[in-house]
Amino acid sequence: MTRILATLLMAIAAITSTTAQQNLWQKDATSSPVVNDDHSVTLRLYAPNAESVIAEGDFTSEPQPLTRRDDGVWELTTAPLPSELYTYRFMVDGMRDVHDPANSYLMRDVGSQMNYFIIPGERGDLYTPQHVAHGSLSRVWTDAGDGRERRMVVYTPADYEDSRRKYPVLYLLHGMGGDEEAWLATGRMAEIMDNLIAMGKAEPMIVVMTNGCMRHTAAPGYSDEGMWRPYMSGSMDGTFEALFPGIVEWVDDHYRTIKRKEARAIAGLSMGGFHTLQISKEFPTLFDYVGLFSAAIFRGKEGVALYEDTEAKLQHQFDMGVALYWIAIGCDDFLYDENARYRAMLDEAGYAYTYCESEGGHTWRNWRIYLTEFAMLLFK
Amino acid sequence: MTRILATLLMAIAAITSTTAQQNLWQKDATSSPVVNDDHSVTLRLYAPNAESVIAEGDFTSEPQPLTRRDDGVWELTTAPLPSELYTYRFMVDGMRDVHDPANSYLMRDVGSQMNYFIIPGERGDLYTPQHVAHGSLSRVWTDAGDGRERRMVVYTPADYEDSRRKYPVLYLLHGMGGDEEAWLATGRMAEIMDNLIAMGKAEPMIVVMTNGCMRHTAAPGYSDEGMWRPYMSGSMDGTFEALFPGIVEWVDDHYRTIKRKEARAIAGLSMGGFHTLQISKEFPTLFDYVGLFSAAIFRGKEGVALYEDTEAKLQHQFDMGVALYWIAIGCDDFLYDENARYRAMLDEAGYAYTYCESEGGHTWRNWRIYLTEFAMLLFK
Repeated sequence: MTRILATLLMAIAAITSTTAQQNLWQKDATSSPVVNDDHSVTLRLYAPNAESVIAEGDFTSEPQPLTRRDDGVWELTTAPLPSELYTYRFMVDGMRDVHDPANSYLMRDVGSQMNYFIIPGERGDLYTPQHVAHGSLSRVWTDAGDGRERRMVVYTPADYEDSRRKYPVLYLLHGMGGDEEAWLATGRMAEIMDNLIAMGKAEPMIVVMTNGCMRHTAAPGYSDEGMWRPYMSGSMDGTFEALFPGIVEWVDDHYRTIKRKEARAIAGLSMGGFHTLQISKEFPTLFDYVGLFSAAIFRGKEGVALYEDTEAKLQHQFDMGVALYWIAIGCDDFLYDENARYRAMLDEAGYAYTYCESEGGHTWRNWRIYLTEFAMLLFK
Repeated sequence: MTRILATLLMAIAAITSTTAQQNLWQKDATSSPVVNDDHSVTLRLYAPNAESVIAEGDFTSEPQPLTRRDDGVWELTTAPLPSELYTYRFMVDGMRDVHDPANSYLMRDVGSQMNYFIIPGERGDLYTPQHVAHGSLSRVWTDAGDGRERRMVVYTPADYEDSRRKYPVLYLLHGMGGDEEAWLATGRMAEIMDNLIAMGKAEPMIVVMTNGCMRHTAAPGYSDEGMWRPYMSGSMDGTFEALFPGIVEWVDDHYRTIKRKEARAIAGLSMGGFHTLQISKEFPTLFDYVGLFSAAIFRGKEGVALYEDTEAKLQHQFDMGVALYWIAIGCDDFLYDENARYRAMLDEAGYAYTYCESEGGHTWRNWRIYLTEFAMLLFK
């Protein structure tokens, strides 16, 4: 068992030249957000007739009041913040979820749109586009075998288009309420992979992000379901897992992949960690690298054949060999106990795995860290 | 000269089965927006302590006040609206640009994020993802010859991945302040092309959306420039136009294109219409289809060689042959007069072109219509 240390990616300093340009064109009395030199952040909102403006988000444990200036602009400067990506929203006179109109940058998580800012340095720089070669992102539609086309996102590394080489593949799965866009938007997958690969800290690889919620064929706004409000829907009845070999086959047919177990990884967060556990044990010839990020271990629908005989199937999987079985969770995660129970099961059976325990709970902050740590261990 | 008639795409009724599902999961007392059966729209905002809530957007010529209900929810039901995509924002007690937190759908235009809704029927259905085969969208990085990688978006039609055929290419350029994402977000390019191709009204084609603002290498958030606030920046000094053959060459090298003039089209809106005019006359062997959408005709920087000798270059272009030279503008567009002046120039020289005049001004509503009309004329 290892603990995730705050090992800082020192090398990233070499590729970060431009974060000082943040807010380059917008520094005036109503600019927001402004990342200050001491890594505090100033948030501002023009609300001339409001009686109360409060900021909430993952930069603070408690909602923070803003103070009204004479010109009708409300303002808050935080304490210096650790390097990270933070989301925030305002509450104005009891009206919730007010966006910052001075900040054009929003990210959607399930049904919520949130403004964000990034504090530079270590992790924040890793989540920021840098002056490095960028991979390509393709949104494609595939039928994995059930006669219904579903959308997925495929990241190909920077040298893919101009080389003839073949690449290993990481399949990266979202959680309940998420979709094929989640790892890109809030997970910062493209920035993390571009930067790790540019630093030589991760192997160039293809990353495939599926839509694991069988009720929908695509992220909100891309399917023929109209403008429904995204909600916490999931899929834990074996359907998605059973289709997975069809997805792998499609990827192997359409991309220059290395079509072998030792060149395939699968990982997912929460429900996606559950899917990862099930898919990797059900199809033990497919994946040599397995990552359970805050996995919802014991949550499958009852009476599903794919979820039965878990111990025998795990034994078969570990007998066939797994290069890396990586389990990560935050010490405050509501799924901590069932992860501990699962580890006890693995320990008792004598299966080798790597365990990483971080601070915090069931948060994107942790999942970005887990992706970073896991990606650096793959295909070495 | 032809006028764009409100010719309604009757065939689209065949592919629209699911717009009734709009708001399927969100119909309650605070749902917003709700498209009613009579094609009016109800907007709602929970603002318990506000004294005034106003909705503004392109669904109304005047800002519309909402009315407070006893439960603190403000409400407005519009008159029945023509089928279209509409954007809107609220103003609450003098605070501008308030988003609708019940609506997860936003689109960015330059630096503004706006909520939107779609009224079904004719045009609205064309801008909505339908149950048809979808093309793929790739965000790729290319160096067109100046040593700097720039991001672009490439649409490949639904059958691209599983066929071996070669396709014609439409290059589609944004306006000032726009970027390679603009035609997708506000222009609904992917929905329009998917639906037109599915109906047999447009040939399957590749569509390439470049970033024509040389100061930036990518849309905000994707380059190494930090989180700058998008603004109305442009590029009309000949640099972008001069690079264009390098872009065409890259596309021809990396996609299964038909590498001939008769299988290439170029079109753009506003500044992109200017770029289209310049590129097509400067490189008359490249494009057989040319579309100027509300083009900023006489706006180039002075003293740029590429912008000089226009009449001789146009003569050369028309002497070499142009399958379609298509000019469209709204009767209220602030660029109407310079388009009239340009047409007079073409008339005097006796060059054949097609002219489409629509209602309205310099708006995305018109550009979506122009793309639709232009796409149906290509590669026949």
